[in-house]
Amino acid sequence: MTIMGNSFGNIFRLTSFGESHGPAIGGVIDGLPAGEAIDLDELQRFVDRRRPGQSSLTTSRREADRVEILSGIYEGRTLGTPVGFMVRNEGQQPADYGQLVHSYRPSHADFTYDAKYGLRDPRGGGRASARETLARVVAGGLAMQLLRRMGVAVTAFTSQVGPLQLDVDYHDLDLSTVDNNPVRCPDAEMAKRMADAIENARAQGDTLGGCVTCVVSGVPAGWGQPVFGKLHAQLGSAMLGINAAKSFEIGLGKVFASRRGSEVLDHFVMKNGRMGTVTNHSGGIQGGISNGEDIYFHVGFKPVATLMREIDSLDDSGNPVTLLPRGRHDPCVVPRAVPIVEAMAAIVLLDNYLLNKTTHL
Amino acid sequence: MTIMGNSFGNIFRLTSFGESHGPAIGGVIDGLPAGEAIDLDELQRFVDRRRPGQSSLTTSRREADRVEILSGIYEGRTLGTPVGFMVRNEGQQPADYGQLVHSYRPSHADFTYDAKYGLRDPRGGGRASARETLARVVAGGLAMQLLRRMGVAVTAFTSQVGPLQLDVDYHDLDLSTVDNNPVRCPDAEMAKRMADAIENARAQGDTLGGCVTCVVSGVPAGWGQPVFGKLHAQLGSAMLGINAAKSFEIGLGKVFASRRGSEVLDHFVMKNGRMGTVTNHSGGIQGGISNGEDIYFHVGFKPVATLMREIDSLDDSGNPVTLLPRGRHDPCVVPRAVPIVEAMAAIVLLDNYLLNKTTHL
Amino acid sequence: MTIMGNSFGNIFRLTSFGESHGPAIGGVIDGLPAGEAIDLDELQRFVDRRRPGQSSLTTSRREADRVEILSGIYEGRTLGTPVGFMVRNEGQQPADYGQLVHSYRPSHADFTYDAKYGLRDPRGGGRASARETLARVVAGGLAMQLLRRMGVAVTAFTSQVGPLQLDVDYHDLDLSTVDNNPVRCPDAEMAKRMADAIENARAQGDTLGGCVTCVVSGVPAGWGQPVFGKLHAQLGSAMLGINAAKSFEIGLGKVFASRRGSEVLDHFVMKNGRMGTVTNHSGGIQGGISNGEDIYFHVGFKPVATLMREIDSLDDSGNPVTLLPRGRHDPCVVPRAVPIVEAMAAIVLLDNYLLNKTTHL
Amino acid sequence: MTIMGNSFGNIFRLTSFGESHGPAIGGVIDGLPAGEAIDLDELQRFVDRRRPGQSSLTTSRREADRVEILSGIYEGRTLGTPVGFMVRNEGQQPADYGQLVHSYRPSHADFTYDAKYGLRDPRGGGRASARETLARVVAGGLAMQLLRRMGVAVTAFTSQVGPLQLDVDYHDLDLSTVDNNPVRCPDAEMAKRMADAIENARAQGDTLGGCVTCVVSGVPAGWGQPVFGKLHAQLGSAMLGINAAKSFEIGLGKVFASRRGSEVLDHFVMKNGRMGTVTNHSGGIQGGISNGEDIYFHVGFKPVATLMREIDSLDDSGNPVTLLPRGRHDPCVVPRAVPIVEAMAAIVLLDNYLLNKTTHL
Repeated sequence: MTIMGNSFGNIFRLTSFGESHGPAIGGVIDGLPAGEAIDLDELQRFVDRRRPGQSSLTTSRREADRVEILSGIYEGRTLGTPVGFMVRNEGQQPADYGQLVHSYRPSHADFTYDAKYGLRDPRGGGRASARETLARVVAGGLAMQLLRRMGVAVTAFTSQVGPLQLDVDYHDLDLSTVDNNPVRCPDAEMAKRMADAIENARAQGDTLGGCVTCVVSGVPAGWGQPVFGKLHAQLGSAMLGINAAKSFEIGLGKVFASRRGSEVLDHFVMKNGRMGTVTNHSGGIQGGISNGEDIYFHVGFKPVATLMREIDSLDDSGNPVTLLPRGRHDPCVVPRAVPIVEAMAAIVLLDNYLLNKTTHL
Repeated sequence: MTIMGNSFGNIFRLTSFGESHGPAIGGVIDGLPAGEAIDLDELQRFVDRRRPGQSSLTTSRREADRVEILSGIYEGRTLGTPVGFMVRNEGQQPADYGQLVHSYRPSHADFTYDAKYGLRDPRGGGRASARETLARVVAGGLAMQLLRRMGVAVTAFTSQVGPLQLDVDYHDLDLSTVDNNPVRCPDAEMAKRMADAIENARAQGDTLGGCVTCVVSGVPAGWGQPVFGKLHAQLGSAMLGINAAKSFEIGLGKVFASRRGSEVLDHFVMKNGRMGTVTNHSGGIQGGISNGEDIYFHVGFKPVATLMREIDSLDDSGNPVTLLPRGRHDPCVVPRAVPIVEAMAAIVLLDNYLLNKTTHL
Repeated sequence: MTIMGNSFGNIFRLTSFGESHGPAIGGVIDGLPAGEAIDLDELQRFVDRRRPGQSSLTTSRREADRVEILSGIYEGRTLGTPVGFMVRNEGQQPADYGQLVHSYRPSHADFTYDAKYGLRDPRGGGRASARETLARVVAGGLAMQLLRRMGVAVTAFTSQVGPLQLDVDYHDLDLSTVDNNPVRCPDAEMAKRMADAIENARAQGDTLGGCVTCVVSGVPAGWGQPVFGKLHAQLGSAMLGINAAKSFEIGLGKVFASRRGSEVLDHFVMKNGRMGTVTNHSGGIQGGISNGEDIYFHVGFKPVATLMREIDSLDDSGNPVTLLPRGRHDPCVVPRAVPIVEAMAAIVLLDNYLLNKTTHL
Repeated sequence: MTIMGNSFGNIFRLTSFGESHGPAIGGVIDGLPAGEAIDLDELQRFVDRRRPGQSSLTTSRREADRVEILSGIYEGRTLGTPVGFMVRNEGQQPADYGQLVHSYRPSHADFTYDAKYGLRDPRGGGRASARETLARVVAGGLAMQLLRRMGVAVTAFTSQVGPLQLDVDYHDLDLSTVDNNPVRCPDAEMAKRMADAIENARAQGDTLGGCVTCVVSGVPAGWGQPVFGKLHAQLGSAMLGINAAKSFEIGLGKVFASRRGSEVLDHFVMKNGRMGTVTNHSGGIQGGISNGEDIYFHVGFKPVATLMREIDSLDDSGNPVTLLPRGRHDPCVVPRAVPIVEAMAAIVLLDNYLLNKTTHL
């Protein structure tokens, strides 16, 4: 992040703007390499993956969320100049949010934004709304088109919903099937169980947490920076900046803590003439720099704080209030977080590819 | 991080330099507020906490690691100008590292640094050595002196060593006792068991992973940035940049993923006239901004990759080599990581305090 | 500037986007302090000052250039979140630019953009068009509203057009009359002569260079940064980034070079209880930091390179071409540069005010 | 500059530290490309060029100013990691500065540093001393070694001392003779006159301003950034950050303001198969991006404010004081500014070469 928190990336950098129910959400993408063909239809399809209202599992708010490119792309190719873009906010139902003007929802950002800024846009969470992630999938979608040209593929999927954990090595999953079900879990049976659990939570006006796993293949050895700029530190920063994300693990992640060194060394082996490793406990990164193996990591999300129940809380004078269930909210954000995780990973990777070009004269 | 990975922080910023066995480790600290009294003896004591050789549990490399301040402090007070500092590297035993000039240790950064830079300083891990964290504890130690003046306390402790997990709410621990034992676990009995486990691993030439928990009290509501600059994203980035760190969790962390929303809402309650919360599952941060409750998080570390055993590996031509146990290495880095975690947390917090001063005219 | 050149400022930061004849020009303003009332009509009037077509002295391209605020302002007050904004490009006459698709205009950026990016938007200069400065006057206009609340006034005026130089101490001018004539010179008689010179150049299909002087009053002692961040270095960077700007002078500027030290010392004197100086040769800045006197500086502009004549040039294959006079262009940009100079100065000053808040704990 | 003013550059970045009479002056150079051979003796010779005491024209303070490299260079080659370096401050004569503890020298930074920071190191100007530029010539000297490998040469020279202006096109000068005389003017006769003028000023306890011109050859078309990052805006920022610099002009500079467009167009012409220009009024940059012609610019310096006379001033309580001539000071800084100008130019150019590598995938 940089300074005020609304920019991300070094060479390839997204600066985002927008409140949930203001005129528009958008951003500026700087550092997009020049002369690259961009498929705007494909970009729109990628953006659509985070759109609500795609199934009964997600919120019923229906928005076109049509991305309008305002600059930087000319006759289908990138100019090397910044790409301004925006998505008009439509379908606002401000009446839904009237009760929030002076009240604080528990485990939401209403109070902390007031504490920091002294005021806030109470409509739909304002700047703290997950709708802001629209800007990220636009930037990430562009990054993914370029990464694919270099043979880099970024695929995320739902690996946990509430207590249901997908306990399968990702090599044994067919990652091309992620979008075959609304849960975005590439194990059809587990996907069915997860969907049932989400429906069950919804029926009770409750919500569920979960986990997204992301696998990046095709990154050669040498990407990433030393010390504070370790590639997994950058990925961690990117993921923990996503709304509701609460944990980040690279490779074996937290499992490492309970292991002995002799159990988790990734021994070297020659693979088709390149230096590879037999196992990949480290998740494709050593010393902060990619080693040529798959990069994989896990992002844990808390359950959405907006329950479809009456909630006791306080208003901004400290008086008790009862918040009524209003608005349209996902009982589990994890399926919609999948493209956001991919997008943020793609931003980090393209940025590090570009940074790495400056390592030598 | 910024650009090349060797700087951290926005307003309060550390730029670090140094290879493990080069002339010196050091850095420049910019943005240290002017006119503040600094206790250099206290700073040295803080730095000494990460020094190896403090007990049989840590490496026997003995270094004075005397911090020399080169600028920015005059007659005991900060000038507002950058603080240059360095620690001479002494006690190098380069002969220890001769076998590493052309060989790659598994799960170390030897290969990835070569892949990125085309060359490396093979002595003691060069820039990838944990000795670099010296620069961080100097900056963090200064930050802690200033934070304390604002009533902010940062305390970390060992909460896991291998399979031994301290399963106690931190409120039930006496955090003033962290340094009473070499493991830095504020539960004397668990500390004893952890120490035994580390000795046991050492006796077998093996190593152990573990976990550090950090508690920050006294941060008022309103620190942190929105979107990409969420306070826990900054903390996550800071922690994941520490050598061997592999996971980061804020508040309940990964536990959130398996929970229902109704189980983990932090309901508001008035506390001495301020807006507080009954529980603190979120770890003191909502929407990326502090809410006035304690901030706490967990950092998981992999077991050190340097075993005191013969290790089969490859050289930089891809030929098999056997690496002999050499050098002095901790069987478990977690106790020494405690002050490093505190230091990085302090850097993030002081930086965000300063950033927050610019929120209003 | 930062990295890719499209952002300016540290805490208060403008990131701009847009090509002259693309869908829109716009930007994101981050770091605008929260809770401030904004007068959007006043902002529009400020933006209108750089609009072409205001008199016969400027280009006849007529554009509404209506600024649309997309975020960050709610119920008339700043939220502390980024202000996205845009101005639709209208009135494009792409046919005017057909001859430029494969030809390079002398002393324009056509060739250098091609050399850098490998392609360019040939319509109206693309990203290199002065139309991009629209984004700057929006950000600068917002900054000026806030600066005024602190008693800081920023006023620029035309001090030279071609060989006609206004050789009057600015204290002897009535700076409130700057906009009384289309040349924006606060000396009515000189303004008349300048206007005649511009008309004369236009009649000959020629153009004129000139100079803008800017005076900033009300800045207290202490703004600015040391070393590389000297306040006049920041102002110089800001001004030299304006299209066609070729020189920058602070205070006496270039005149200093020919003087003796004994002639130009600014001796101290008490002024109403504050430390002031008798003279102000230095332009209100010593050692890069404001000293409480007026800040004033001069920006020199080259004559516009687009003549209303046939021009011999080369195409992108190196073959001779004759460019015909097309499009609508100012014979002298200096009058329209006046608000742009003010805007960039205001951005620098507000940013430094905010930076300075972090000097002490 | 970045944030606190003590860093410069984007990819190739110098962070400097140090007070004139503190323990050391030094810095960290990040982004130096990996694997490059460095000639440390040549670096020392380059640094020595800014050293005082080289002739009767400069101050008699004699310092070894031996640069000690602390990291980042191993066995004569760059590691790609940050280069920490320092120069011990020796020869301090603190007694010289006793009278300045509570007094403000006119046209110095004593008062403004106090106003900003609330305290200062009064010895020798502290952080505001030109001795800080030592860090810049170290970074610039390294940059020049790399630039030369790419065929880029940076040469500055004294073009004005007081009223004596070298009015010769630089093509008619032998730039290899710059260091043949202590004034660093490559016109032997003018150099003699300038030296006399400086001696004359010294004899009267006075000082002289002047100008440095810098010529950069070998930069291909395409370096530099758009909008705020124009190459001449970066150069201007770099030069105006040098102590005592008060004006910056690119190419014809201020002369442009008085000219007609038809007089100063740089028409295209093919030169050995590349697109060149007949004239080079613009100084090798169009639209902020290099066009392949020589880059040249002029930096004006004020006369040093420290006269060898009694000076009436005020103390920090506003009471009159008489400052006695003390210390060792140049009567004209311009000759010693020559290598500093070269160094800052080299930093900007290497940084932009590296930035430009990221323009394409």
